[in-house]
Amino acid sequence: MEMAKIAPGVAGGSNRQTLTDGDGEARHLLRRWAEAEGADLTVDRIGNMFLRREGMEPDLPPVCLGSHLDTQPTGGKYDGVLGVLAGLEVFRSLNERKIATRYPIVLINWTNEEGSRFAPAMLASGAFAGLYTEEWVNARTDAAGLAFGDELDRIGWRGEKPVGEQPMKAFFELHIEQGPLLEDGGLDVGVVTHGQGLYWLEVSFEGRESHTGTTPMDRRRDAARGLAQTIELVNETAFAFLPGVVGSVGHASVEPNSRNIIPGYSVCTIDIRTADKAKLEAMRERIERGVHRIAETLGLAAKVTITGHFDPITFDLECVSAVRSAANRLGYRHADIVSCAGHDACHVNRVVPSAMVMCPCVDGLSHNEAEEITKDWAGAGANVLMHAVLETAEI
Amino acid sequence: MEMAKIAPGVAGGSNRQTLTDGDGEARHLLRRWAEAEGADLTVDRIGNMFLRREGMEPDLPPVCLGSHLDTQPTGGKYDGVLGVLAGLEVFRSLNERKIATRYPIVLINWTNEEGSRFAPAMLASGAFAGLYTEEWVNARTDAAGLAFGDELDRIGWRGEKPVGEQPMKAFFELHIEQGPLLEDGGLDVGVVTHGQGLYWLEVSFEGRESHTGTTPMDRRRDAARGLAQTIELVNETAFAFLPGVVGSVGHASVEPNSRNIIPGYSVCTIDIRTADKAKLEAMRERIERGVHRIAETLGLAAKVTITGHFDPITFDLECVSAVRSAANRLGYRHADIVSCAGHDACHVNRVVPSAMVMCPCVDGLSHNEAEEITKDWAGAGANVLMHAVLETAEI
Ligand SMILES: NC(=O)NCCC(=O)O
Ligand SMILES: NC(=O)NCCC(=O)O
Repeated sequence: MEMAKIAPGVAGGSNRQTLTDGDGEARHLLRRWAEAEGADLTVDRIGNMFLRREGMEPDLPPVCLGSHLDTQPTGGKYDGVLGVLAGLEVFRSLNERKIATRYPIVLINWTNEEGSRFAPAMLASGAFAGLYTEEWVNARTDAAGLAFGDELDRIGWRGEKPVGEQPMKAFFELHIEQGPLLEDGGLDVGVVTHGQGLYWLEVSFEGRESHTGTTPMDRRRDAARGLAQTIELVNETAFAFLPGVVGSVGHASVEPNSRNIIPGYSVCTIDIRTADKAKLEAMRERIERGVHRIAETLGLAAKVTITGHFDPITFDLECVSAVRSAANRLGYRHADIVSCAGHDACHVNRVVPSAMVMCPCVDGLSHNEAEEITKDWAGAGANVLMHAVLETAEI
Repeated sequence: MEMAKIAPGVAGGSNRQTLTDGDGEARHLLRRWAEAEGADLTVDRIGNMFLRREGMEPDLPPVCLGSHLDTQPTGGKYDGVLGVLAGLEVFRSLNERKIATRYPIVLINWTNEEGSRFAPAMLASGAFAGLYTEEWVNARTDAAGLAFGDELDRIGWRGEKPVGEQPMKAFFELHIEQGPLLEDGGLDVGVVTHGQGLYWLEVSFEGRESHTGTTPMDRRRDAARGLAQTIELVNETAFAFLPGVVGSVGHASVEPNSRNIIPGYSVCTIDIRTADKAKLEAMRERIERGVHRIAETLGLAAKVTITGHFDPITFDLECVSAVRSAANRLGYRHADIVSCAGHDACHVNRVVPSAMVMCPCVDGLSHNEAEEITKDWAGAGANVLMHAVLETAEI
């Protein structure tokens, strides 16, 4: 895959985090490929790319499809990329067969879907949907303190189109499942009816730095223990609310991180998700209460901040049924599923009728360089995507 | 304090880690000050500094005193520095009063006592005592991969004296207690009879990176949970073996440290100490067994490495009684205590009769920039040190 040669990872996957040089290069490659198919590029003020294939009635709102080209720091080759390149394949197939559609079709690459460099995830599709202002997006900073806006300018991908002004009839996104359900069920394709809601929290503890050898056990204010108990709290909470929930700590660090100093500060990020709004709120409350109890027991000061949140999503009934009937017509084994990950379509669905197609991935593995899919799975997903788009764009 | 102006910390303390430019500068200042008192400098092949005040019988083995000038990354102004500068004060007092001693006196600054940059702690005094070879010392690397030997050359402080060849009649070290016992007991001075033994372990877990949203709770191999349970295991073990033991995790990190990736790798350092050798071994065994049980339960692979170790120490009876009788003669409130931290004297004691004097510190706080002592405490400690040295060096 040409695309995966840009900013490869260290173990066969990709490290093409948003607004890095590699992201810039990937955008140029997509542009070249799409323009070769006759598409016209516009870019909005936060770097979202819109590649338009004209329709027979140019004034109609386009049917849109796409996903994202950015990856996790240790990401796979398909998470996001599949949905963009499948959209390109739709253009190629239509051109080969000289098929014209009534509605224009627009292929989209959303900026910063992953959120690992600049939180929250799906930042630019969120701004498109009116969740965030352009100013707020530009001010997001990464771990090195670099701002989204500065990095976007640096790689030269700030466009002129005002954010949210792209008209859309509908939006379709093909994405790998990133979980094991489709593969376990022996299915070719998932018809995504709902999406999990999410909270991202950041929890920090302030204790007292002191000497590991000389500070008696009963005189410690150990921020590492706050961190440890929080990691377990998040997991216990998720197990307590099963089924249909997950909870994890992905980022964790202690300060000053020296082997003979009891940490005086620790911080971690929490990620909880479920498609059940009441459970989502109850989990968050239980974790917040638990963190404050932990702090009290250990003599620490705790701070809990919400860094990301969206409610569970119900995709558009008509778009979902376009996907389901395409899968039926094409004879694929399919089932309705919930998207367990967040996706650009989840945000776009707030303002434009949207739906998603999912394809299985080996062992449910994603956010891992070893992420893998089969050609058949990719083909089935792309085929269903194309047929759903064509039904909506009218040929 | 002139010395504390070199490589200050961010909160009133010091960040003068071993073999940094600041360490080099501190060494030059000590040299200047000691040479002004007529002392002669020699440096050994791993940077230990020996500043000699001649005795009436130059062929006798010198009575030595000193400590270290390096600090933790967020260190105090007295940890180590007090013992070196008090030695300098001994030279100044003897010169002012024109006192000659039968035995020469040598003031020592040991390289890399802290061990936070290059593990283990007390590296150069350990090599002096024959625990480590010069080659092994030179090959230690810091977190950035820089080698001890290269950094020593870079700051220009590699000498020619073979390691371990400095003759010594005895070694005395004044150090702040770094714990709360002396202050709590209303004492001026601690007569150190024993030192805690120590194990430093490094524990890493290998799990599987995967997506926080899509990986079901029962299909995870979460290395962050291995870390969390290990931090709690270490603390539970220490509480279970009380009194007279401590256990801590000072360094902890997870990979890839992204908020929506379940960590596939984690690592932490463990520090356990007690003056009871049987307890020390039992604690280590319990922790090692616990780590493997944690790994099994969570589906992780665990690795436990010993990165530092020494047995509990009994200081030399005669040197200890020189300290005790000095404290008695001078009328200070004193008590016998155990050194809870590791010190250069603990290693030197293996090959040369040694003892330590301790002075209280405010709230037992050390390895913290807010570390503080009073002038009276410092004066009492330095006074006892001088009298113990003079008794041994004979006037
Ligand atoms: N699909 C995906 O991995 N998106 C990143 C946001 C999330 O963590 O769900
Ligand atoms: N005294 C002191 O802090 N030494 C560092 C080695 C240790 O951790 O005990």
